Order: sequence, then structure tokens, then C-alpha cells
Amino acid sequence: MERKILLTDCHDETGIIANVTSICSKYRLNIVKNTEFVAHEQERFFMRTVLEGDFNSNFLSDVRAALPDGASARLVSTAKKRLVVMVTKESHCLGDLLLKHYAQALNLEIVAVIGNYDVLRELTEKFNIPYHHVSHEGLTREEHCRRIMAVINEYNPDFIVLAKYMRILTPEFIEAYPQKIINIHHSFLPAFIGAKPYEQAFNRGVKIIGATAHFVTEHLDEGPIIEQDVIKVDHNFSAEDMALAGRDIERLVLDHALSYVLDNKVFIYGNKTVVFKN
Amino acid sequence: MERKILLTDCHDETGIIANVTSICSKYRLNIVKNTEFVAHEQERFFMRTVLEGDFNSNFLSDVRAALPDGASARLVSTAKKRLVVMVTKESHCLGDLLLKHYAQALNLEIVAVIGNYDVLRELTEKFNIPYHHVSHEGLTREEHCRRIMAVINEYNPDFIVLAKYMRILTPEFIEAYPQKIINIHHSFLPAFIGAKPYEQAFNRGVKIIGATAHFVTEHLDEGPIIEQDVIKVDHNFSAEDMALAGRDIERLVLDHALSYVLDNKVFIYGNKTVVFKN
Amino acid sequence: MERKILLTDCHDETGIIANVTSICSKYRLNIVKNTEFVAHEQERFFMRTVLEGDFNSNFLSDVRAALPDGASARLVSTAKKRLVVMVTKESHCLGDLLLKHYAQALNLEIVAVIGNYDVLRELTEKFNIPYHHVSHEGLTREEHCRRIMAVINEYNPDFIVLAKYMRILTPEFIEAYPQKIINIHHSFLPAFIGAKPYEQAFNRGVKIIGATAHFVTEHLDEGPIIEQDVIKVDHNFSAEDMALAGRDIERLVLDHALSYVLDNKVFIYGNKTVVFKN
Amino acid sequence: MERKILLTDCHDETGIIANVTSICSKYRLNIVKNTEFVAHEQERFFMRTVLEGDFNSNFLSDVRAALPDGASARLVSTAKKRLVVMVTKESHCLGDLLLKHYAQALNLEIVAVIGNYDVLRELTEKFNIPYHHVSHEGLTREEHCRRIMAVINEYNPDFIVLAKYMRILTPEFIEAYPQKIINIHHSFLPAFIGAKPYEQAFNRGVKIIGATAHFVTEHLDEGPIIEQDVIKVDHNFSAEDMALAGRDIERLVLDHALSYVLDNKVFIYGNKTVVFKN
Repeated sequence: MERKILLTDCHDETGIIANVTSICSKYRLNIVKNTEFVAHEQERFFMRTVLEGDFNSNFLSDVRAALPDGASARLVSTAKKRLVVMVTKESHCLGDLLLKHYAQALNLEIVAVIGNYDVLRELTEKFNIPYHHVSHEGLTREEHCRRIMAVINEYNPDFIVLAKYMRILTPEFIEAYPQKIINIHHSFLPAFIGAKPYEQAFNRGVKIIGATAHFVTEHLDEGPIIEQDVIKVDHNFSAEDMALAGRDIERLVLDHALSYVLDNKVFIYGNKTVVFKN
Repeated sequence: MERKILLTDCHDETGIIANVTSICSKYRLNIVKNTEFVAHEQERFFMRTVLEGDFNSNFLSDVRAALPDGASARLVSTAKKRLVVMVTKESHCLGDLLLKHYAQALNLEIVAVIGNYDVLRELTEKFNIPYHHVSHEGLTREEHCRRIMAVINEYNPDFIVLAKYMRILTPEFIEAYPQKIINIHHSFLPAFIGAKPYEQAFNRGVKIIGATAHFVTEHLDEGPIIEQDVIKVDHNFSAEDMALAGRDIERLVLDHALSYVLDNKVFIYGNKTVVFKN
Repeated sequence: MERKILLTDCHDETGIIANVTSICSKYRLNIVKNTEFVAHEQERFFMRTVLEGDFNSNFLSDVRAALPDGASARLVSTAKKRLVVMVTKESHCLGDLLLKHYAQALNLEIVAVIGNYDVLRELTEKFNIPYHHVSHEGLTREEHCRRIMAVINEYNPDFIVLAKYMRILTPEFIEAYPQKIINIHHSFLPAFIGAKPYEQAFNRGVKIIGATAHFVTEHLDEGPIIEQDVIKVDHNFSAEDMALAGRDIERLVLDHALSYVLDNKVFIYGNKTVVFKN
Repeated sequence: MERKILLTDCHDETGIIANVTSICSKYRLNIVKNTEFVAHEQERFFMRTVLEGDFNSNFLSDVRAALPDGASARLVSTAKKRLVVMVTKESHCLGDLLLKHYAQALNLEIVAVIGNYDVLRELTEKFNIPYHHVSHEGLTREEHCRRIMAVINEYNPDFIVLAKYMRILTPEFIEAYPQKIINIHHSFLPAFIGAKPYEQAFNRGVKIIGATAHFVTEHLDEGPIIEQDVIKVDHNFSAEDMALAGRDIERLVLDHALSYVLDNKVFIYGNKTVVFKN
């Protein structure tokens, strides 16, 4: 008995659920959980099917044959995902991920941490995880990104997590890891795009601040949003107080976004996501 | 083209989704939305299927034939539900419901309001809805409840909503309307069961207060919970301030609970609910 | 025994609290509640003092004499505030305010409703409040705003509430009622400034939507924010679903903002507010 | 220039704010922030005054002389508080506190961790903090508690934090550290007092779960509440899922409660707290 997840993403047509679930029955696979969504405007169908049983090698090709042209059907394992984490100086998001790794509390294994400063080496190495200091000093952005890519590629990660990595990445970098780079942005996007969002929030006098976890695409802070959350602030909060309070929400939003991504619960379409939380 | 909702509730077995959705395909019914849940402990399967098409009279019996013994399958319309609202003196929940009725903002029609005081007649009649004052004075609880039942039965409602009706109902009353009576309780159940929950909350010094919408069963405040929500309070709140602040959350929780119930999104099993919010 | 509120707003200097509260003691005024805030960057001091006692006519001038140059000190009553409400076609915010007026649940009296359509006359008149239909058709924006101002000025309101009034006001209008116009904007500002915020939110794929109550200044959607709140959404929400869900948060945010403003709990400074919620 | 905090707690009388702040002025102490609260029912006055300046040794006695009989006035430093953390097997709350200690993100220093199992030694020692394994096996509760007290007393901590310490403490233990023991309870108290709150919550079918940080008194789970928070759950959550999701809220609630306690923002009176969050 094995457990796998079937991820179906195709044009919406009548009968898809029946077709796919009938094939599951035919192969005596038990559906532990099934979740569907139809984006009616785009006539697009998404389904996540958690299956248990003995997987015959013909199962997936049968499913594919039953789907409309251009469909995507993938059968993925529930194994831990390999993560490379990129950081600058702030420890709160990295620390949280290291604890999750240590406690095996998320479906992840951190295989390496890369920092453009050496500040977070000590914390990382407490958890016996390799830390790579790839300084940006004296390098063009292109050269710096290429050096980071060289390190990343040694580890062949499933995902690259920008855990408060405070530098802009090159298009070359981003294109090398499509749908694999996840960033935590310290504002409730699309409010306060770009640098110093807490200072922007303070100056605007907002009563709520937030954080956004999103996939990274070529357009800064504009990739598909996975998860957002907020906390209330008031006139008592300086910009620095907001940044401090924001740390809690940054690490939580990143945790939650990762929990969905690592359990294969997220589909990307266009600039949006479908997140089957349950 | 008609839209109906198929509600399936049965023992969990392999192949149910395939069987039911295949029958939908066979009858050329388009699945607009499908949501399932398996309560693994109880081995019980729930599915809500929104269908569009021309409904053949054999469709439902075909579905039933394909389900395990003891299954329940119902095909329900999306028409407005008829509500009788019961009140005492507080206007905030009733007012909210009257506005929803007026703006056609929930899938409901309020067919009558019954109060054990005459206080809310004026507000109700502004909206051209009949108001029945059934005083409890000088009556036993049994006799009072019977008089209310006589009024209710004139209207044949789909649901009876206790919108801050502050008296206990008799077992006879409750048994007459199984799974049809919805109450809003002014605490985050199971905390502060019974009378004066805000005073209890104040005395305990809690930092959060809440409200709970639930189906009414013979056990006071212990029926299946449909929806709950909370707000933060602090030492500045007197018991009266909590009651005032609580009104917002009471009417919202009742609204939300009703929105799910009225759209046939709620299954009851044992003392719990499955609520397919989307 | 009377209750009044002293509102102090001045340059921050050592000894202000002592000076002001000593004068309160000297006049045998009991401090029921006192709240202060210092905006350290601007060196500005704000204090709200709820007082009980017999108010001597010299009290306020004594307070003023004890404050730094340029200080503002006002002694305001706790009486109900007079509101003119401006609307277009949507009933949810107006309906909520009418119920608050009816139940005397906020410190307000709605003295008139002005609509650029006649749609909400029926609802308004149920509550015996005058409704003025001031159509914008065939008029310049300037002429339309002047006609509205003529109506408003008959009522001499304390505040003008834009309860989903969907047209832009002229600078002349805005300047005529400084710090008196309160708007509910259907997004979490500064995200989605301008028209159709829910459509913008849907297209961006955000996971949270919100509402913002703010004072209106000459810059569209950029006045001092009084209150904001949010709700979670997901891929299941169409733009229309977001708009529907947003109504709950719009009316609540407006309610809360008004509850602070009507109880003299809000100071405006620059483009921000100090809100002494308790 | 030094910064200290004056904490005043006394019977409410007219003139206290004036008296105390006048003494501050007299000693040329600048009031950086002042927060007051009157519990009108109990006629009790609380004030937290953040002061800057040169502190004369007579200042505090002058303040005390100006207060009613039975008043408490304390002048406390803003230095880091010394914490002993007690644990059993779960790492999420301890891990969070260790990271806060490491990043100096809360006003605390963890001087020791005590566990009734040895499970969390490895994690603790990564951060160079002494770990004491005090097993309860083969000991009476009294003897076990006394051994823990012996360890605690070596460190003379300001507070003892029960970070998912899953055993009941003796009255002797509790009396030895009045107002110094802080517990995180894994439910929204007073709902689900006692053992296995997530299982209780699952069985009751609640739609929200929570956590509560409170001071420990002789009555189990009934001490003064400092902070509470909640998260939404639904039918998809098993009791185990609730426990997993609850960890996030447990560590956050404990963090927040500690942030208030460590900054001298919490007064205890009777079985309640006043928490001056700002």
C-alpha cells in the first residue's frame, strides 16, 4: 500500500471527474481525499486526488488518455521536499524553518542555506546544515546570481525559499527555476510594493500591516500569491515597531505557504494560485 | 437548463465518486461544483454536487441505486428558503436579517416574526412582515411553546431562527422541527454555556469573546455547531461593553451560518456539522 | 454632575499631563478616563480626558493658559452627533446605519439621506428620515456638488458619511467640510485605489480583501485612515463573490470608525489619525 | 539619562494622576509614555509611566507619600528578565523562545531549561543554555517538584515559563513563586479545561480553536489570563490536525504574553490582568 497524489489540470469539460475517478476505481486505488475547482472564466479544471493502493505503471497513462488535449496529469509522491533557503541578515524566518526541519514539523528537508552575508552561519550550523556565504560585494548582480546558482545546482532542490533575502534576482536566475522560487514579502501586496514597506505603511498611517508569500516571477513582487495574512496596528506603532510585529506574521505566512506547497496543494495558473488547503 | 444540488451522505466505500459522477455524465448533467469529505473515523462520505441541465425523473433513483445501503441522496432546489424568526427584545440580529430580506442578499424569505414581547413589532412591520406577539406571561412553558408552534405551523417554514430568543424551548417543540431550528448563542461555546455569558466572560477576565450559531437539540447549547467567530477584548471592557461589542459578532456569525444552511452547504452528523463553505 | 471630554493637542513638553490634570483637580473635576499619546517624531502630544463634575466657565481658559503656544484644547459634549448620509444604490452600509439610528446603538442621529439615485428612498423613509434625491444627470460635477451642499447646509450636520456614495466630490465640496467627511472605501487602502477594487483584487489573485474608513481630503482615497479590516478569500471567490463578502466588512469598518469619531476618540494630524479606542 | 518604569496600583481617588505626574515634573523626569486604567467596579487605579531622566533616591518615596493608603508603587528597570523554561517533550514553544533569546528579540535571557524528559536537551544545548533533566519517574509529585525547585533556585529567575510542561505542579511549588509562573494552555480557556483539549474540541465539533497564556495559581487552568488567540478550523481537521495547527497559536500567544510581562506591562488584580499593550 502506497500513498500518492494525482494532480490534474486541464480544460473544463463534462465528465472529467467521472472519467478520472473511474480509472482510479478500475485500478483499485482508494480515494482518500479529492478536491476540485473549476475556474469558470477560464474554463479550467483543477483536481487533487490523494490515492492509496498499489500503483500500476499504466494508471497514469490511462488517466492522461481520458483527459482533454493539453491536459496536465502528474502523479507525485508525498516524500519530503528538498529546500535551499536564501537569506540576508534577519533570522526570524530562517530560524522558524530550521526549527520545522529539526522537529520534522513540515514536509521539508533544508539541504543548504545561502547568505549574501555571513551573519546567519552560526544559527544554521547549529542545526548541522551547510551554510554558503556568497557575498555580493564587488560583483555585478549577474555574476552574484550566477555564483548562487552554482551552489544551488549542487543540491538539486525542489524549492528555493527566499527567507528575507533582500536583493533582487536576475531574470536568468528566475527563469532557471520556474515555479520553484518562493518569496516572503513584508507587506500585504499589492500595497507597498518594493523597498521599506513598513516605513511606507507608517507614513501612510495604515491600521493593518501584512505579509505575502508568493512565487517569484520576472516582475518584482508581482508573482502568484500563495498566502497572505495581517495584524492590526495603531498610532502607537513606529515604523520599527511595525517591522518587529511584522516578523511574526512574515514567518507564519511563509510557514503556511510552504505547508501547502510542500504537500502538493498548490496549482499555478496565469498569475494566480489555486490552493487546496484541506 | 435548471440548477439543482445533489446531496449525498453514506457509508464510505471505494468508487462512490466515480459511480455518482458517471450517472451525472450519463444524464448529461454538468457538474458546476463538487465538494466531498470523508469522515475517516466514522467511515462516512459526504458530497455536495451542484448540477446544471435537464433533470430526468430517473436520475435520483439511479444515484440511489448506486450507493451503499442506508445512504441518503437528495436533490434539492436552489430556491429561497422560508424562515420564521423568533425574538425577544434585542433588535440587532433581527434587524440584520430584515435588511438581508429587503436587499435579497441571502437566499431567504422571512415569512413571519414571533416575539414573546411586542417590542420588535414596529421594526418588523416596517418591512411588511407579519409580527406575532405570543406572550409567555401567565403560561406554562409547555403552553407557551404550543402557542408558538401553532403560529409557526401556519407558515410551514424551512427553518426557524432564534435571533436572540431568550427563553428555553420544550423538548416537544424541538422534536417537532428536527434539524430546522438554528440558534445564535452569545458566547464562544462550549465556554460560558447558559445564561449571562458576557458577565461570565467579564468575571473570568478573558481576552476574547465570541458567538456560536448552532442547530438546536434537546440539550441546551450543545447542538451541532455551524459557525463561530470571536473578537478581542481587554481590561477596558465592562460586561456591558462586551455585550455591545458582541452584537456585531452575533449578527455576523448568524448571517454566515444562515448563508451556508440556506445554500444547502451543511450536513449534520452526530453532534457535528460538515460545512462546505465554497 | 455633567460629563464632558477635554481634547488636548499640542507640542510635547515636560509637565503637560501634570499641568492639565492639576487644573482638573483644582476645579474638582473627576477624571473618569484619561488617554495620552506622544508622536515622538513630530514631538506632538495628544490627550483625551473624560471628566465628570460641575464645569466652571474658567476651566477651559485655565487649561489653555497652561499649554504651550499653538496648542488646541477643546471641551466637547457627549451628545449625539448629527449625520447626513450620502448614498448611491447599495443598501448595506445605509441599512446598517439606519438600524443603529433606530436602536440608538451608536452616538448618532441621522438627520437626512441624500442619494444621486432615488433607489434608497423607500428604505430610508421606513425609518422616518428625510430622503433627498439629487440627481447628477445633466449636471456638471460642480453644479451637482453645489446642489448637494445646499441640502446638507439645511441640516448643519456634525459629519457627512459617504456610505457607498460612488461619485467623486469637488475640491469646493471637500473644503467646505474639513475633517467632517468620512468615506468607506471598498479595499484595504492603499491597495486598489480607485474604481472597481474587487475586480482589481480578483485579477491580482489576493488571498485577503478589506475595507477602509477614512476622512476625505482633496486627494482621492488618500485621506487619514480611521479604521481598516479584512477577510480571507481564496480561489473560489469570483470578483462578484468578493464584492458580496466585502459588504460585511465595509459596514463593520464604517460602524467601528464612526463609533470612534462620534465618541470624540479621533485626532487628525497630518495625514494620519490617533484613535483612542478605549 | 536613564529609563525606568513607575508602576502605580492603588485605590482610585481624584487627583492621583495630577499628584504623581507633578512629582515626576518636580524631579525633572520626562514622561515618555503614560497609560492609566480605572477598574470602576473595584474603584482601583492602575498606571504605568515610562520615565527618562536622572532618578533621585527620594522620587519613589515622594510618590508613595502622595498615594492613598494601601497603594503599591514600584520603580522597575527595563533590563532583560531572567527566565527558567520548563518543558516535557514538545519543542515548538521552547524552540521559539530559544530563537527569541538568540536573536535578542524579546526582553529576556533564558538562564536554564528544565525537562521531565531528556528529549529537548539537544535543542537547548545548541543555544548554549544549561539543560536539567529532572525525571519524575519513581518520585511522588511533591518530591519531583521539590527537585525542580532546587534547580530553579540556583538561577534566581524573574519568571518561570511552562512551555508545554505537561504535569501538574504542587501547591508548594506554586506558592514559592507568586505571580512568576506563566503557562501556555492549549485551548481557549475556559473552554476545554484539563487534559487533551484538542480531542475535546474535535469531539465537540467546534469551528475555532485557541490558546491561552496565564499566570499559574493553585487552581488548575484558572489563573489570571494574560493573552489568548484563536484560529479557525473545520470538519477537515482531525484532533491531530487541530493539535498541529494549534502549535502555531500556542507559541505566538506565549510570545505575546511574555512580551507584555517582560516589559512590565501587566498588572494582576484578583483573578484578572490589566495589560497595557502599548
